[in-house]
Amino acid sequence: MPQGQVTSVPEDGLTTRQRRNRPLLVVHTGAMKGKSTAAFGMALRGWNQGWSIGVFQFVKSAKWKVGEEEAFRALGWVHEQTGEGGPVEWHKMGAGWSWSRKRGDEEDHAADAAEGWAEIRRRILAEQHRVYVLDEFTYPLKWGWIDVHDVVDVLVNRPGHQHVIITGRDAAPELIEAADLVMETTKVKHPMDAGQKGQRGIEW
Amino acid sequence: MPQGQVTSVPEDGLTTRQRRNRPLLVVHTGAMKGKSTAAFGMALRGWNQGWSIGVFQFVKSAKWKVGEEEAFRALGWVHEQTGEGGPVEWHKMGAGWSWSRKRGDEEDHAADAAEGWAEIRRRILAEQHRVYVLDEFTYPLKWGWIDVHDVVDVLVNRPGHQHVIITGRDAAPELIEAADLVMETTKVKHPMDAGQKGQRGIEW
Repeated sequence: MPQGQVTSVPEDGLTTRQRRNRPLLVVHTGAMKGKSTAAFGMALRGWNQGWSIGVFQFVKSAKWKVGEEEAFRALGWVHEQTGEGGPVEWHKMGAGWSWSRKRGDEEDHAADAAEGWAEIRRRILAEQHRVYVLDEFTYPLKWGWIDVHDVVDVLVNRPGHQHVIITGRDAAPELIEAADLVMETTKVKHPMDAGQKGQRGIEW
Repeated sequence: MPQGQVTSVPEDGLTTRQRRNRPLLVVHTGAMKGKSTAAFGMALRGWNQGWSIGVFQFVKSAKWKVGEEEAFRALGWVHEQTGEGGPVEWHKMGAGWSWSRKRGDEEDHAADAAEGWAEIRRRILAEQHRVYVLDEFTYPLKWGWIDVHDVVDVLVNRPGHQHVIITGRDAAPELIEAADLVMETTKVKHPMDAGQKGQRGIEW
């Protein structure tokens, strides 16, 4: 149920139906927590449509299991068991990408990040998924490990109907410019202000 | 992985562990979409902890099926089948609350909302769930259908370790004051600005 109002009709030559079904590039950015949470919440809707979901986590340690990962793996299992929802793949740079031969020992995060993007680019060109969550993808862009112009070129020209959701602080201006939907979560009040640390089930 | 920094230690007489495990009252408010999405993303983490999840939707029509509902019902099924994660209950005012005898015909939304809150209050006092999502709960408060002082009193004094997540625009000041964590999602850029309407898998 959209809460916004359509305030103008663009002169892009598309019908409402064409615009309605336009694949989206979504960026969740800003300094506050909640970016990944919001992205995964959005992916739940795609799962329910029976869409193939591909999650690619660029920074977090493999050892650090998030609740969302377990929940999405469970939803992938539901799809395999019952046909309900869509298939789910979840890949993590921190664990060594699952498709990669080299593992663990070599600590070259820049190369790992570039390899992750190369695989995502291949999948986008092959229209492998309907929803891509590129979690914390803004950081390898910021650190120059992946070329933002290549990313924008692939995303803007991606074939078919593939939604791409990117999270992370300090999203590059080129990415913001290319995005259809940019969300920023603002802290109004947070328990860490009162000296509280993160807790299980809430922060992870 | 908490992204915030602890900037002060409160003089509340609690140990760090006590503060860490303090149950949270979370409010997702603001004019933009993404509030419910963020709340359900947070509930995924609770599910993964094996916690009992209770969702109570106060406004949306029963006919309007959200992807999150199907996904959480699937996760509840996973719990029943395998013991993984936690149990899930999903109740909707629009369908007539599932525990209620009266259904459909009588169109008294104010009474329905009050009945919903009465049941939630019973459950909180009985410590029935570990996570409550009160979706679009700010509206019946705003419209005077439910007394905000009663709500705040029950929430502030709730027993045990129950997290409560409330969504909706225009959260009452009393609720903001009582909350531990208040999140507001800000639009930076949205496709509806370009004349696009909501689409399946993204908006619902």
